[in-house]
Formats: sequence, C-alpha cells, structure tokens
Amino acid sequence: MKCTVCKQPAVVRLPSHHARFCAEHFDVFFMRRVEKAIKRYKLLKKGERVLVAVSGGKDSLVVTDVLHRLGYDVCGLHIDLGISANQFSAESLEVCREFFSKRNIPLEVYNLKEKFGKTIEDVGERIGRFCSTCGMTKRYVMNAVAHQKKVDALATGHNLDDLSAALFANLLRWEMRYLSKGTPHLPAEGNFCRKIKPLVLLFENEIHFYAKLHNIRVVTASCPHSKKAKFKRYKELLNSIEQKSPGTKRFFYEKYSQIAHIFKAENEAKISLRPCSICNMPTSTEICAFCKTWKI
Amino acid sequence: MKCTVCKQPAVVRLPSHHARFCAEHFDVFFMRRVEKAIKRYKLLKKGERVLVAVSGGKDSLVVTDVLHRLGYDVCGLHIDLGISANQFSAESLEVCREFFSKRNIPLEVYNLKEKFGKTIEDVGERIGRFCSTCGMTKRYVMNAVAHQKKVDALATGHNLDDLSAALFANLLRWEMRYLSKGTPHLPAEGNFCRKIKPLVLLFENEIHFYAKLHNIRVVTASCPHSKKAKFKRYKELLNSIEQKSPGTKRFFYEKYSQIAHIFKAENEAKISLRPCSICNMPTSTEICAFCKTWKI
Repeated sequence: MKCTVCKQPAVVRLPSHHARFCAEHFDVFFMRRVEKAIKRYKLLKKGERVLVAVSGGKDSLVVTDVLHRLGYDVCGLHIDLGISANQFSAESLEVCREFFSKRNIPLEVYNLKEKFGKTIEDVGERIGRFCSTCGMTKRYVMNAVAHQKKVDALATGHNLDDLSAALFANLLRWEMRYLSKGTPHLPAEGNFCRKIKPLVLLFENEIHFYAKLHNIRVVTASCPHSKKAKFKRYKELLNSIEQKSPGTKRFFYEKYSQIAHIFKAENEAKISLRPCSICNMPTSTEICAFCKTWKI
Repeated sequence: MKCTVCKQPAVVRLPSHHARFCAEHFDVFFMRRVEKAIKRYKLLKKGERVLVAVSGGKDSLVVTDVLHRLGYDVCGLHIDLGISANQFSAESLEVCREFFSKRNIPLEVYNLKEKFGKTIEDVGERIGRFCSTCGMTKRYVMNAVAHQKKVDALATGHNLDDLSAALFANLLRWEMRYLSKGTPHLPAEGNFCRKIKPLVLLFENEIHFYAKLHNIRVVTASCPHSKKAKFKRYKELLNSIEQKSPGTKRFFYEKYSQIAHIFKAENEAKISLRPCSICNMPTSTEICAFCKTWKI
C-alpha cells in the first residue's frame, strides 16, 4: 500500500476519499480538511479568539490541537462534572490538563461541585434524567463562559459521524428545533456567541488516526451513566448505508447544512427567547433550566 | 390468542397497534384506518369519482376494493407495459381484469404497444434507464387519463412502508422536489388532478392480510427489470428501527406529512411548469419527457 501523494509506504487507507497516505501526507490531508471546513462554512477569521469545549475525548482534543496549529488564539474550557465512577471525571481532567500544559494553551476548569456544592451525579439522580440534565448543564456553561470571556467563537469537536447520526435521529422525530441548529456554523445571537464545528468534514476514524499520529493521550474511561444505545444504532445504520454507497453520509450532512434554513423558519415562529430573571442568559421561560437545576 | 374486541379466537396480531383481531374485527379495523386517512388528509368527499391506478399487486387492488366498499364512484386504470419475461404483463392484466369484472367496476386498459407501436422494453432498452423511464411513463399516463376522464381524484396503493422508505431515501439525498410531493394528498394543479394515497395509515403486512381475507388474487410474478435493492435495504433499516422502537415509522411519516410544506417553499422557487408543445400536459421543458420518449 503506497501513499497516493508521495508513493512511499502508506500507513492509512481512506476509502471514502479513494486515498492512502503516509503519516506526513495524512497530516497534510487532515489539516486541509479543517481549513476547508473553516472556509466553506465561514467558521473563523484569521487570528480570532476561540474557546474550545474539551471533554478529554479524542474529538475535542484534536480540534484544539488543529486550531492551535492553524494559528488561532485558542483557549480551552473543561467542565468538571464530578462523576466518581470509573474515575471518569478525575481522568478526564488529568488528560485535559496534560494536553493544555504541554502546548502552553490556557485551560479554564469549571468545577460544578466548587461552584454549586453539588455534582452532576447529585443533580442527575434527583431529577432522574441524567443525560439530558448533563447536556443542558454543559451547553449552559459553555455559553456562559464564552460570553464572559468575550471570545469570537465557541468550538466543539463534533465529527461527521456524530453530526449525520444526530441529523438522522432528529429527522426520524422531526425535531425542528434541533434540525434548525445542527449546522457547522451557528451565528452569534444576543448573549450566545458564534458556535462552530471545525471537524465537520472529518470521520471518526480519521480523527482517531490523527490523535494516534500526534501521540495525543485521550480519556479511556467512558461515562458510566451514558445511555447512547439508540444513537450508536443510528450510527451503525448509516455506516451500513455508507458501506454500500460510499459518500452517502457526507452528502446527507453537507446538503442538509445548505438547506437547514427551512427548519429555522418553521421553528422561529414558535419560540421567542428572553433573559433569565436570575442569570440573564437567553431562555424561553422565566427562569432558565440551568438556574432551576443548580441554583434553586 | 383472542380478538381484542370480541374475545373470540384471533387470526392476526398487530403489535404496532397492541391488538389482535378475528377476521371480522380485522376487517372493521382496516376499513376504519382507510376512513381515518380519508378524513385526516381530506382525500375524498362522499360520492366523488376516483380513478385508481392498478398494477395487479396487492396494494392497488386492495385500495380499489376498499374505496368501492366505502361507496366511492371508482374506476380503474391498468397500464399494459408489454413486459414479456415471466409473463409479467400478461399475468398482471389477467389479474386486474378478473378483479374488476367480479366487482363490476369499469377498468380502462392503456396498452402502450397498441398506442405507440412499442413496449416499455423497446423504449427502456434504447434509453438504458429502465426503471426511471417506466416510472415516468406510468406517472404521465395516470395524469393524462385522470385529466381526460375528469375524475375528482387519482388514487394509488402506496402504503406506510413504501412511503416511509421513500421519505428516508429522499432525505438521504435531500431530493427537495420529491420531498415536497410525498404527502398523502397532493391538491389538483392545472391539468393535474388531485392525487391521493388512501392506504397511508396501513402497513404492508396489514394489506397482505386484507387481500388474503378477501380472497383477492394478486399478481405473483415480479417485474424482471426491477432493481429495487436499495429501496428494499431502506425498508429493512426502518423495520429494524421500528422493531426496537415501535411507532417510529408511523410518527416519522405522519409528522412529515404535516410539515412537508417547508420543502414545497424551497422547491417552488426553482421550477415553473408550462404546457408541453405536443400534448399540452404540464412540463418544465418545451416537450415533456413522455412525448420525447414515446412520440418522437
């Protein structure tokens, strides 16, 4: 197997691109895919300040690494959820600290227990819907910290496999609100800063290979509360289609990102946002879900 | 296993409705589902004239039978495609003739060979895209005959399995034009009469059982040219989701039929129709695809 570019021995094969690469040209390919996404979706301008939300998983660390290498003014945000089982939160934090200190990139750690005297486990168990409470909490903290730091954009590590599976799930239930927000670039609006997904053109296995190539240590424990069985099934279904008709997944998501405005129009008529009476962040109710959960 | 209604021995089990029925109450259930679709989607008014496009398969014969029993003024249209392999067209025609003469319902047979001196096999082989030419031809003939007969509506036998699989396929490729037209009720527009799908709330297995119950003989040969492998795969994928989360398929299609107008708006901006300069039926080009294929 030879590299498509230099004909030296290849170390990775990418069937969806009809290409094989050596380590050096895989890296060139990967960086170009991110640059292409940034250009195509107008994610960032030269030198802008980006806050990257990092969990310690491969996606968020890789997106941080690439944006840093591309010369953006990057800082990180890690939310310490306080999940004790499997040493999940402890290992996640350690992995993030090591990554950021090695590269001399600033990292803010937002510790829920320190701020509110309780962990996501205390709150999630009380409410009984662990994953949705955790998701809401993370979204809120990301938005609030990005607003407070006055960064130009908030980046997440979502990849093409995540995004197409989420799109599929949201279409099955016609979740118009999520369908209107699943694009790689969500413009700033009120107190919400611009949200970007620079890994939108890359598959999971490509990101995995980048992490390996650059010796990026990622968290190995998986969240003990995660119930992603359904989402995993959707990923497998799309993978089975992709295998028979290569390119389907990419087309499915890319074309969606062009026409997503049709869902926005449908959605906008129904929801209007106003400031939360406690924290002032935008919400559709008197007090936002975060304040209801953590402050009351 | 006992009938959910009368507690007599049941002959069919419908997990998606949490019900089991004896023959009599399955029939009541089936008729009510069609009546519900007619009412919900405003498909037909009492006593209206309906042309049903019949292939000789279970779906089209069952929809004819039910509309006839419900008291609509029904007539049939069968297109003799002239497919000789497997005796496909000969058997289809015979099955249709038998069905319609038994019930004393008028049936028009549109024989392509008699009208144009060539069969779909002659034309399809010349053009090289058999299934799409056949689909275009059938759609054209249905529209033209419905227009000429001045019926109130043109009915087809599409069921919930077909419609949800087609919806899935069209979403994967974001086929905006098809997405805007996949609803159970397409209003009349210019020379196109109203198009309706009265079996929209019924699954394939339910229709199969209705045909069996009423001793409806259906065509057994399958089209020798059919290449529906991809479509079949999408059906299987949706079935696998339905099995794990019952009700998903129905929700997926029903909610779509409520919001399909968002695709219409996107589509309308781009395509405008005008009369074909040969046959006068609506087309987006100077001469419609049917006239180009069959008359030139």
